[in-house]
Amino acid sequence: MTDVPSPQFLGQPSAAPSHPDAARLDPVPNPHPDALYLTRFVVPEFTSLCPVTGQPDFAHLVIDYAPEAHLVESKSLKLLMTSYRNHGAFHEDCTVDIAKRIVAAIAPRWLRISGYWYPRGGIPIDVVYQTGPPPSALYVPETGVPPYRGRG
Amino acid sequence: MTDVPSPQFLGQPSAAPSHPDAARLDPVPNPHPDALYLTRFVVPEFTSLCPVTGQPDFAHLVIDYAPEAHLVESKSLKLLMTSYRNHGAFHEDCTVDIAKRIVAAIAPRWLRISGYWYPRGGIPIDVVYQTGPPPSALYVPETGVPPYRGRG
Amino acid sequence: MTDVPSPQFLGQPSAAPSHPDAARLDPVPNPHPDALYLTRFVVPEFTSLCPVTGQPDFAHLVIDYAPEAHLVESKSLKLLMTSYRNHGAFHEDCTVDIAKRIVAAIAPRWLRISGYWYPRGGIPIDVVYQTGPPPSALYVPETGVPPYRGRG
Amino acid sequence: MTDVPSPQFLGQPSAAPSHPDAARLDPVPNPHPDALYLTRFVVPEFTSLCPVTGQPDFAHLVIDYAPEAHLVESKSLKLLMTSYRNHGAFHEDCTVDIAKRIVAAIAPRWLRISGYWYPRGGIPIDVVYQTGPPPSALYVPETGVPPYRGRG
Amino acid sequence: MTDVPSPQFLGQPSAAPSHPDAARLDPVPNPHPDALYLTRFVVPEFTSLCPVTGQPDFAHLVIDYAPEAHLVESKSLKLLMTSYRNHGAFHEDCTVDIAKRIVAAIAPRWLRISGYWYPRGGIPIDVVYQTGPPPSALYVPETGVPPYRGRG
Amino acid sequence: MTDVPSPQFLGQPSAAPSHPDAARLDPVPNPHPDALYLTRFVVPEFTSLCPVTGQPDFAHLVIDYAPEAHLVESKSLKLLMTSYRNHGAFHEDCTVDIAKRIVAAIAPRWLRISGYWYPRGGIPIDVVYQTGPPPSALYVPETGVPPYRGRG
Amino acid sequence: MTDVPSPQFLGQPSAAPSHPDAARLDPVPNPHPDALYLTRFVVPEFTSLCPVTGQPDFAHLVIDYAPEAHLVESKSLKLLMTSYRNHGAFHEDCTVDIAKRIVAAIAPRWLRISGYWYPRGGIPIDVVYQTGPPPSALYVPETGVPPYRGRG
Amino acid sequence: MTDVPSPQFLGQPSAAPSHPDAARLDPVPNPHPDALYLTRFVVPEFTSLCPVTGQPDFAHLVIDYAPEAHLVESKSLKLLMTSYRNHGAFHEDCTVDIAKRIVAAIAPRWLRISGYWYPRGGIPIDVVYQTGPPPSALYVPETGVPPYRGRG
Amino acid sequence: MTDVPSPQFLGQPSAAPSHPDAARLDPVPNPHPDALYLTRFVVPEFTSLCPVTGQPDFAHLVIDYAPEAHLVESKSLKLLMTSYRNHGAFHEDCTVDIAKRIVAAIAPRWLRISGYWYPRGGIPIDVVYQTGPPPSALYVPETGVPPYRGRG
Amino acid sequence: MTDVPSPQFLGQPSAAPSHPDAARLDPVPNPHPDALYLTRFVVPEFTSLCPVTGQPDFAHLVIDYAPEAHLVESKSLKLLMTSYRNHGAFHEDCTVDIAKRIVAAIAPRWLRISGYWYPRGGIPIDVVYQTGPPPSALYVPETGVPPYRGRG
Ligand SMILES: [Ca+2]
Ligand SMILES: [Ca+2]
Ligand SMILES: [Ca+2]
Ligand SMILES: [Ca+2]
Ligand SMILES: [Ca+2]
Ligand SMILES: [Ca+2]
Ligand SMILES: [Ca+2]
Ligand SMILES: [Ca+2]
Ligand SMILES: [Ca+2]
Ligand SMILES: [Ca+2]
Ligand SMILES: [Ca+2]
Ligand SMILES: [Ca+2]
Ligand SMILES: [Ca+2]
Ligand SMILES: [Ca+2]
Ligand SMILES: [Ca+2]
Ligand SMILES: [Ca+2]
Repeated sequence: MTDVPSPQFLGQPSAAPSHPDAARLDPVPNPHPDALYLTRFVVPEFTSLCPVTGQPDFAHLVIDYAPEAHLVESKSLKLLMTSYRNHGAFHEDCTVDIAKRIVAAIAPRWLRISGYWYPRGGIPIDVVYQTGPPPSALYVPETGVPPYRGRG
Repeated sequence: MTDVPSPQFLGQPSAAPSHPDAARLDPVPNPHPDALYLTRFVVPEFTSLCPVTGQPDFAHLVIDYAPEAHLVESKSLKLLMTSYRNHGAFHEDCTVDIAKRIVAAIAPRWLRISGYWYPRGGIPIDVVYQTGPPPSALYVPETGVPPYRGRG
Repeated sequence: MTDVPSPQFLGQPSAAPSHPDAARLDPVPNPHPDALYLTRFVVPEFTSLCPVTGQPDFAHLVIDYAPEAHLVESKSLKLLMTSYRNHGAFHEDCTVDIAKRIVAAIAPRWLRISGYWYPRGGIPIDVVYQTGPPPSALYVPETGVPPYRGRG
Repeated sequence: MTDVPSPQFLGQPSAAPSHPDAARLDPVPNPHPDALYLTRFVVPEFTSLCPVTGQPDFAHLVIDYAPEAHLVESKSLKLLMTSYRNHGAFHEDCTVDIAKRIVAAIAPRWLRISGYWYPRGGIPIDVVYQTGPPPSALYVPETGVPPYRGRG
Repeated sequence: MTDVPSPQFLGQPSAAPSHPDAARLDPVPNPHPDALYLTRFVVPEFTSLCPVTGQPDFAHLVIDYAPEAHLVESKSLKLLMTSYRNHGAFHEDCTVDIAKRIVAAIAPRWLRISGYWYPRGGIPIDVVYQTGPPPSALYVPETGVPPYRGRG
Repeated sequence: MTDVPSPQFLGQPSAAPSHPDAARLDPVPNPHPDALYLTRFVVPEFTSLCPVTGQPDFAHLVIDYAPEAHLVESKSLKLLMTSYRNHGAFHEDCTVDIAKRIVAAIAPRWLRISGYWYPRGGIPIDVVYQTGPPPSALYVPETGVPPYRGRG
Repeated sequence: MTDVPSPQFLGQPSAAPSHPDAARLDPVPNPHPDALYLTRFVVPEFTSLCPVTGQPDFAHLVIDYAPEAHLVESKSLKLLMTSYRNHGAFHEDCTVDIAKRIVAAIAPRWLRISGYWYPRGGIPIDVVYQTGPPPSALYVPETGVPPYRGRG
Repeated sequence: MTDVPSPQFLGQPSAAPSHPDAARLDPVPNPHPDALYLTRFVVPEFTSLCPVTGQPDFAHLVIDYAPEAHLVESKSLKLLMTSYRNHGAFHEDCTVDIAKRIVAAIAPRWLRISGYWYPRGGIPIDVVYQTGPPPSALYVPETGVPPYRGRG
Repeated sequence: MTDVPSPQFLGQPSAAPSHPDAARLDPVPNPHPDALYLTRFVVPEFTSLCPVTGQPDFAHLVIDYAPEAHLVESKSLKLLMTSYRNHGAFHEDCTVDIAKRIVAAIAPRWLRISGYWYPRGGIPIDVVYQTGPPPSALYVPETGVPPYRGRG
Repeated sequence: MTDVPSPQFLGQPSAAPSHPDAARLDPVPNPHPDALYLTRFVVPEFTSLCPVTGQPDFAHLVIDYAPEAHLVESKSLKLLMTSYRNHGAFHEDCTVDIAKRIVAAIAPRWLRISGYWYPRGGIPIDVVYQTGPPPSALYVPETGVPPYRGRG
C-alpha cells in the first residue's frame, strides 16, 4: 500500500455542490498507465429538473472510459452528479455535457456516456455519446440496461 | 365434436362496436358445469382515452373467473375491449366497470379483474377488483405481471 | 431393482393413438403408497384443433397430482397427449376433460390441471381445474408459468 | 363521460411544493364506493436527503390501498412525492410518514406502503407498513420488486 | 438555463391530431451539433388499424437516430404516434413510413426504426429499417426487446 | 388506404392444406421497394412428425428476410406452417426446406431461418440457415431465443 | 471456535460409495437445538439410471428440513448423492427414498424434498414429498425452480 | 428535522471490529413505535471462515424485523457483519447467532434471518430462522433470492 | 419421406458404451450439402469423473457445427456423451477432446464446442474451442448461457 | 487417464496465503497446445480492503485466457484470490494487477480480466483489461454479468 494516491474527497465528509459549476472532479494518477483498460461507472441515482416545466427528471447513467494519465475518483464523480439535483437540463444536452466535463478533467483515451432517462408522456429517451470509436484493443461490454417496456 | 356450441362472432368477420354500450358479450354454455374451475383471459391490447385530457391510455388486463352456467366467448370479449378505444374512462372506474359488465353477462361463481395501466407522470396505477374472496377450492395462480420499474 | 413395475409402453416403440378414445393410460403401482406426495408433469407439446375453424391450437399443460394406489406412467401420458393432435376441442372443455380422464384411470388423492393456451385474436386463455382443495399436508409449488405479455 | 370528477391539478401546470407541509393531496370521489378493490401506485422516482449527512437518498415506493369514499388523484400524489426532494428524512420514518399522510387525506379501508431504498454502505433497507391485515376479500398481488443482489 | 429552446407543444395542452397528415413534428435545435451521438425513443403505446379487417393492431416501436442540426421534440413525436390511432396501416408499410416522416422533418445523420408488432394468427411480425449502416463512430446498443415466445 | 394490396387469404376462412405441396405462399407487393429493411416472423406453433418413429416434433421458428419486390403475406405463411402438421421431416432438412420454399416464392434480397427444436433424448437441436451474409446496411437483431437449459 | 463438531468426512479425501446402501450420512450436533429453523440443500448434480432402459437420468434436488438434535453434514450428503450414480431408480420412488433415508438418519422435526427431473419424451416430472405440513412457526421460502418450458 | 436521533457511527469514520465480540450494535429510537411495520436489511457482502478448513465462506443475508422501541442503525450493522471476516463459523450456527445477537440488542417484536451461503462441493446451504410466526398484521414480502442452479 | 437416411441407433434400444473408445458416432448424409448452415446441439446432461479425486464433474455443453457431407445423428451423440460417465477427464482436456472426436467423424466445415462446467471450490470453468473463425456467411447465435453468479 | 498432470494443490489441504506475494500460481501443461481455445474462470468470492478507509470491498471477477504452453490450475487460482482478503487494493489497480500476475505465471496467448465491484456511495465500478485484441480465431462469449441497477 505504498503508492496510494491522496484523493481529495474520499474518506471525508464533503458538502454537496449546489450547482454543476461548483463541482470539481478529482483526477487521481492512473496506477497502470501502460495498460489500455476500461473503467465503467454506473449511476442509478441521477436527477435534474426539466428546464421548461421545472419538474424532476430521473436518469440511469453508464459512464465508460479508458484512462490516460488519470482516473476519475469516484466520490468526486458522485458529487458532480449531485450538483445537477436542482438545475434544469434537457436530456440530450445534459448527457453530452457530462461527458464533455469528464473529458476536460482527465483527458481519457476514450469515453462513452449512456443516459437512460425515465419516461415522460409514455416515451423514454436514451442518449449515447462517445468521443469516437472505441480503441480496437479495448473491450467494452454491452451496457445491458433492459429496454423500456411499459407494462405487461 | 357433437356438442359444439354456436358462438355468434367466432369464425366470422365482425365490425368493431364504436362504444361500450354497443358491444355485446356472447355467453356460451359451460361444458363442465359440475366442475369448479378457473378461466383467465389476458388482454395486453387495451386502450381508452383520458376523460380530462383526451389523450390515449393503455392497460394490460387480466380477467379471472370461475364459470357457473356460461363461459364468455373470447371473440366477443375482444370486441368489448375494442369498444373502449375511443371513449373516455378513468383507470379505477373503467377497470371495475368491465368487471361488472362481465358479471352481468354470465353471472360467474366468482370474478377478478387486474388492470395494469401504463405510467402517466412517471407513476403507473394498478387496479384489482374481485367479487369476493375466491372459492376455497379454486386455484387462482398469481397474475405474475412484473412490477413497474422505471429505468435501470 | 427387484420391485420394478412393468410398464406397457416404456422402452418399446408405440404407435400414436389416432383419437383420445383410442389412447390408454397405464397405471403403475405407487412405490410409496404410505406417503402423501406430489407428482407434476409438464407438457409443453400439446396441440389440438379448433372445433369451429379447424385451425391448430397449442397449449402448455401442467398436471399435478397426489397418487393413491397408482402412478401415471409417463409414456402412456405422452401417447394420450398425442391423441388430441387431430381432434377438435375447445380450450376450457379439453383441459377439464383431460383431468377427468386421469382421475378415472388412477383415482388420485387429488389432481390439478393448468392449461396455458396460446393466444388467439391477441388474447390467450388459461384454464385451471382441480378436484378440490389440495390436501393440507401436500406441498404444491406455484406452476410459475410466466403470464402472457404481448410484445415489448 | 358525464360523471367526471374535477381534479385540482390534473391537466394543468402546477408548481412543485417546496416542502411536504406545502403539498396537498387531492381526494376525488370513488366511482365504485360499493366495491372493495385495490389501487396501487408505483413511484420509482422518489428522492429525499439524509438528515445526518445531507446526501441524497433514493427509493422505489409501492403504495397499495383500498378506497372508501375517495381516491387519491395521481397528479397530487406526484406533487407530494416531489415535495420531499430537498428535505431530510430517515428511511423508516419517511416511509411510514407518507402512509399516515395518505390515510389522513382519504381515510381508506386499508393501506400499505413498501419502500425499497437504494443501498448505503453496501446494505439497502426496505420498509413495509400497513394499517392492519388486508381485508380478507381484497386481493393484493405481491409487489414483485426484485431483491437487492450486489453484483454478479 | 439561458439557451433553452422553445418547443411548440411541450408544457401546454395539445389536441391529438386525427390523421397522420394533420400531425406535425417539432424540430428543436441540436444542443451539441459538433457531437455524433445517438438518441433513442421507445414507444410502447402505438396502435393503428388493419386496413383489411379494420381491427386494432398494436406495436412496440424503438426509434434510434443521430441528430444533425435538429432533434425531434418528444411531445410532438407522441402526437404523431397518436395520429395513427384510427387509421389503417400494414405493419411493414407503416413502420417504414414513420421512419421516412422523421427523416423528412429533421434530416438526421442516420436513423433506424424497429417495430415489434403484436401477434396475429399466432405469428408476430417485426420490421426493422435504417437509412444505411450506422456511422462507424456511433454506438447503437441492442434494442433488447425479448423475442415473442407464445406460452410456457 | 388507397394502395392496399389484395391478399388471397387474409380476412377470409381458409382450409388448412394437408401437405406442404398443397400450400401456397401469397406474395404481396413490397410497399417500400426502395428501402432495404428486415421483416421477421416468429412461429412458436410449428409441429411435424419424426420420419423414423412417427412421433410429433415441435419447433420454434424465426424467419428473417429483406424483401425485394414482394412480401410474404402472413396468413399464407401460417397455412404453410400448418401443412407440415402430419408429415415427416428431419430437423435439419425441414428447416432448410422451409427457407428454400420462401426464397422460391418471393426472391428476397436475403433470408435467414432459425429453427429451435424441442429436445429429444435430453438434447435439443437448433438449425440456422441463411442465403449468405446479411447485406451490410441491414440491421438484423439477435433472435434472443433463450438457450435450452434442462432443469434447475 | 471451541465447540466445533468433528465431522467424519469434511476436510479429508473420501472415496465415493458405489451403492446407496454403502453410503452413510453423518449426523452432527445441532448448534441451536432450542431454535426452530430451516436448512436447505440444493443439489443440482444428481444422476441415476433408468431401471428399465439403463439410460442416465438427471435431477435437480432441493432438500428442506428443520433439525431436531442433529444436522446433516453436507459432505456426507454429497457422498450419498454420488452413490446413486450407477444404480437404477424411478423418479417418484427415488425422490421419496432419499427423504426417508435422511429422516432415518437425523429424525428432523420436519423435512421436504423437491425433485426436478430432466425431461424424457418431452415431459419432465417433478416430485415433492414432505413428512407433513411444515411447523406453523417455520418459514420455508418457495424453491423458486423455474418451470420447464420446452423451447421459445 | 427536529427529532433526528444521534447515531454513534453514522457519518463518521469507524474502525472495523476485529471480532464479533468487539462489535456493538447501535439501537436508535423507533420513530413510529405506534406502528407495526417491517424493516429489511440485505447484506450481500458477508464473509467468514470455515472452522474446519480455514477457507473463506460467503453468504448473502436477508434480515427482516418488526421494531419495538428501537431500530438497528445500519452502519453499526455493517460493522457487526465485518467483524466475522476473520473468524470461524459454521453456516447454520453463524446464521442463527446473528439473529440472536440482534434480538438481544433491540428486542424486536419479531425477527427473521435468511442466510444464502455460496456452494461448497457443488451444494449450497440456505438457513432460515425466525423468532416465531410473523405477527398476523405484518406484511413480509418473499425474500425473492433466486435458487441456486449450477450451470446451464 | 422417400430419401430418409437409415440411422444406426435412432428408434431402437442401444446399450450405453462403457468407455469413450467404445462409442461410435453415426454420420448421416447431409440433406442440404449445397447449403452452408449451422447445427447446434445442447447437452445439459454431461457428467464425467475428476482424474485426481475421482469425484463426479458436471457440465453443460453446446456444440455448434456447419456440416459438410454428413450430419451427426443425435442419438449416437447422446451415447458418446454417456460413455464419459465413469471415466476421468480434466475440464479443458475433455472439452477439446470431444470436439476433435466429432471433427474426426464427420469432417464439418467448421465446429465449436462450449463447455460450461459446474463450480469446484467456488469457481467454475468454461472452455470454448473452435476449429477456426466461423465461415463469414454462417450465422452462429450467442450460446446465451447465463454466467455463474454464486448466490444473491 | 495416463497423461494426468500433477497439480501441487488440487486434492490436498492447503493453507491460505496471507498476502498476494505469498501466493503461487500453479502452471500445469496445456493438454491441447495445438489448439487455440478459451478458458474462463468466474470468481464470485473476491474480497479485499479499501486502502484509504480499511473497509472491505467485494468484487465478482471473470478471467478469460487462451493458454499457450500452460493452464492455470484452479485451486492455485483460488488461493491467490484468497490472499487479497486482508490487503488494501484500489479497484482499478487490483484488477489489472491480477491480470499481470497471471500473465507472468503462464504467458498465455491472450488474457482478459473483468472486475465487477460492488457499489460504494451508490456507484459501482467495473474494470476490464485485456492484453490486446483477442486472436481473431478465438471465440470469447460475452461475460453476461447483469448491469447494476440500484432498486426497483
Ligand atoms: Ca449544454
Ligand atoms: Ca406491452
Ligand atoms: Ca363508471
Ligand atoms: Ca431504478
Ligand atoms: Ca367435453
Ligand atoms: Ca416522522
Ligand atoms: Ca456476487
Ligand atoms: Ca405507405
Ligand atoms: Ca428435403
Ligand atoms: Ca442444470
Ligand atoms: Ca424404493
Ligand atoms: Ca413454447
Ligand atoms: Ca454458536
Ligand atoms: Ca486428452
Ligand atoms: Ca451475491
Ligand atoms: Ca498496483
